[in-house]
Amino acid sequence: MSIQFEINATAGSARLGKLTTPHGVIETPVFMPVGTLASVKGVPQDVLEELGVQILLGNTYHLYLRPGVETVRRMGGLHGFMSWDRAILTDSGGFQVFSLNELRKVSEEGVTFRSHLDGSSHFFSPESAMAAQIGLGADIIMAFDECTEYPAERERARASMEMTLRWAERSKKYFEEHKNELPWKRDADVGTDAPGCPAERSSADVGFVPGPAASGALRTPGQPGASVPTWAHQTQSLFGIIQGGMDRELRRESALRTVEIGFPGYAIGGLSVGEPRELTREIVESTLEHLPADKPRYLMGVGTPEEIALYAQMGVDMMDCVLPTRAARHGLLFTSEGKVSIKQARYAQDAGPLDPNCGCRVCSRYSRAYLRHLYASNEVLAQVLNTVHNVTYYLDTMRAVRHAIQLGERARFLSEQSGPKP
Amino acid sequence: MSIQFEINATAGSARLGKLTTPHGVIETPVFMPVGTLASVKGVPQDVLEELGVQILLGNTYHLYLRPGVETVRRMGGLHGFMSWDRAILTDSGGFQVFSLNELRKVSEEGVTFRSHLDGSSHFFSPESAMAAQIGLGADIIMAFDECTEYPAERERARASMEMTLRWAERSKKYFEEHKNELPWKRDADVGTDAPGCPAERSSADVGFVPGPAASGALRTPGQPGASVPTWAHQTQSLFGIIQGGMDRELRRESALRTVEIGFPGYAIGGLSVGEPRELTREIVESTLEHLPADKPRYLMGVGTPEEIALYAQMGVDMMDCVLPTRAARHGLLFTSEGKVSIKQARYAQDAGPLDPNCGCRVCSRYSRAYLRHLYASNEVLAQVLNTVHNVTYYLDTMRAVRHAIQLGERARFLSEQSGPKP
Repeated sequence: MSIQFEINATAGSARLGKLTTPHGVIETPVFMPVGTLASVKGVPQDVLEELGVQILLGNTYHLYLRPGVETVRRMGGLHGFMSWDRAILTDSGGFQVFSLNELRKVSEEGVTFRSHLDGSSHFFSPESAMAAQIGLGADIIMAFDECTEYPAERERARASMEMTLRWAERSKKYFEEHKNELPWKRDADVGTDAPGCPAERSSADVGFVPGPAASGALRTPGQPGASVPTWAHQTQSLFGIIQGGMDRELRRESALRTVEIGFPGYAIGGLSVGEPRELTREIVESTLEHLPADKPRYLMGVGTPEEIALYAQMGVDMMDCVLPTRAARHGLLFTSEGKVSIKQARYAQDAGPLDPNCGCRVCSRYSRAYLRHLYASNEVLAQVLNTVHNVTYYLDTMRAVRHAIQLGERARFLSEQSGPKP
Repeated sequence: MSIQFEINATAGSARLGKLTTPHGVIETPVFMPVGTLASVKGVPQDVLEELGVQILLGNTYHLYLRPGVETVRRMGGLHGFMSWDRAILTDSGGFQVFSLNELRKVSEEGVTFRSHLDGSSHFFSPESAMAAQIGLGADIIMAFDECTEYPAERERARASMEMTLRWAERSKKYFEEHKNELPWKRDADVGTDAPGCPAERSSADVGFVPGPAASGALRTPGQPGASVPTWAHQTQSLFGIIQGGMDRELRRESALRTVEIGFPGYAIGGLSVGEPRELTREIVESTLEHLPADKPRYLMGVGTPEEIALYAQMGVDMMDCVLPTRAARHGLLFTSEGKVSIKQARYAQDAGPLDPNCGCRVCSRYSRAYLRHLYASNEVLAQVLNTVHNVTYYLDTMRAVRHAIQLGERARFLSEQSGPKP
């Protein structure tokens, strides 16, 4: 058993759920902040915990290049490496290979690409992408897919979709054969505590050890690797990815055939690649129809606060986006009164909080004038505080969505109770 | 009354003291982290509070250029502007004018210099430097001095010292005439609460208002300007600065004549300007002899952890240095086991904490491998975490020094008690 997903309330198409992972329970719909290189840029992990982040996203492509999968694996996987006890999801590396590499070469076998750091040549296949994600040890990992470019001819979109399907089968096959090799499982093994170097044990040591024995392997709290929970005998979960470009028929086919392969969760990929927002919404809607209701649905790489609320209402359970963190670095802040470009001179002597309706540690302590000064002076604290606020805003948006679903469910329940009497 | 200084224990030349300021009590000897532009680079104010920072240093030269004194003054001074309720000290701007401006022109009247940001021309005199520091509203401010270059001929050092003495008199005169104009005093005035814009009141409103009335002006906690304490009727304190180059006779004369002018505290300036460390120590020692024992002594701009411990043992009460924060940005970390250059490949898979004897939030959570990865990947979190650790290390060093003085005093007391019996 790797994850459990239960739906506790619905309102229209929206679902309020609980996703139980080896590293904690996630309330859905959930927004996952992006921690590309094992860090949500500028924000320490204890602050992320305080903000209520339940799951982070790491980028396999970036972590594969720096610090390298083997380093992360030896440190107990991403959880141990970055000292984060809660859930983590890694993408497959596919999207970055496609978006950061103009010189990539795609074949049936996989993708040859050049590092954006030093130009060195690398190769990702479904198998090597799985091996990388098993080494990184996230709770949820993604099948290796080809992100179809936009715009694309129908035949090109079909061919790309077909390859993604073949790669999904290969991803699943490799994962099933190797899913016991994950780095945090080893720590839960025989109660021996070998701090920091689980890799030194032979692979023969790696076996299924249920509950009680696992807790014997817990390390001193606060030290790297301390995150191994008592459910550490569980494994990662591999999600499939739906492609099919901007074609509803292809999306339908991709969904049905991916579901046929069978995964514990499904992602909608290949969107937010330059298409108009209305088209994104249409494709999301038409893809969701064909996904099983009892499995988590993850929409990759969207969007604005308005968009993530909308997609959640359409029945999406998980989302991620670099927008809150990237915008923060450019001084663009999301508030209940609209977007604020904090660099503007109009804020230079504005003593008010960034967002009067926000209770985050930034809005409750600092003035717009101070935030403007930090940004204008290129102070590092600007990025730290801006990111804390924007991530809070996204998390608050999802909290409000979950609350609305709960209320909607209660309203429906109450209206049924008070319905026409016999 | 502005500050109070009491000495509670001594051990050799070292003194354990309490410096009471309008924004809290400071245990001395104290190390003051540098917050050049109203921010200790990368570290939020709540973290500084948790680390036990009792007083911060701000740089008048930098704040004068960005965001400008008037902006800070309107926001309630530095305390309100950066939302920091504890004590602040500002330097006079003199040192930066000398170190950042090769084209400066010095006359009896003051210094003409060019902004390092845009080349614009500016002028600092003792009077304008005082006006700037009154507008910034730190608890302790510094007389405008000329930092004598190193090396300097004896006649040049004498002339420079003489001008610093004349500037000290002018600084004191201007301060005495204007010390009631500070930004946070206005808030303590008549119990009216005009959030964020104390400057709109007429200067006639500004008068001495003792204790109880002041508390009526307290603002909502967490909002800019919330820092006004009930002792807000107090004023800033102006410290004098001893110069005299590397000449013990000139230092003696500078000390005696500065003390004659009369200040509530004295700083030793003009050191750490390129001279050998042994010479620094000699000059500090020979200057300290001529400073009154009952006033705080501030050694400006030093040094390594070993040096600040040494100077505290010699009888220095206050120190500041950019070293812990600047070194952190270059990946140089101070630990109980010596300096660590975290960028080195040897730490790439080091699961141990940065400093096994440090209890800071960095050492208790993250591994050297993770810190090395953050630095090597140019992640902003590297600067944040490195700075938190280095500042902790400096503060811990001073805590240990204070503890040692306390123990030394107790040892002396005990040995007197158990002395030869009649």
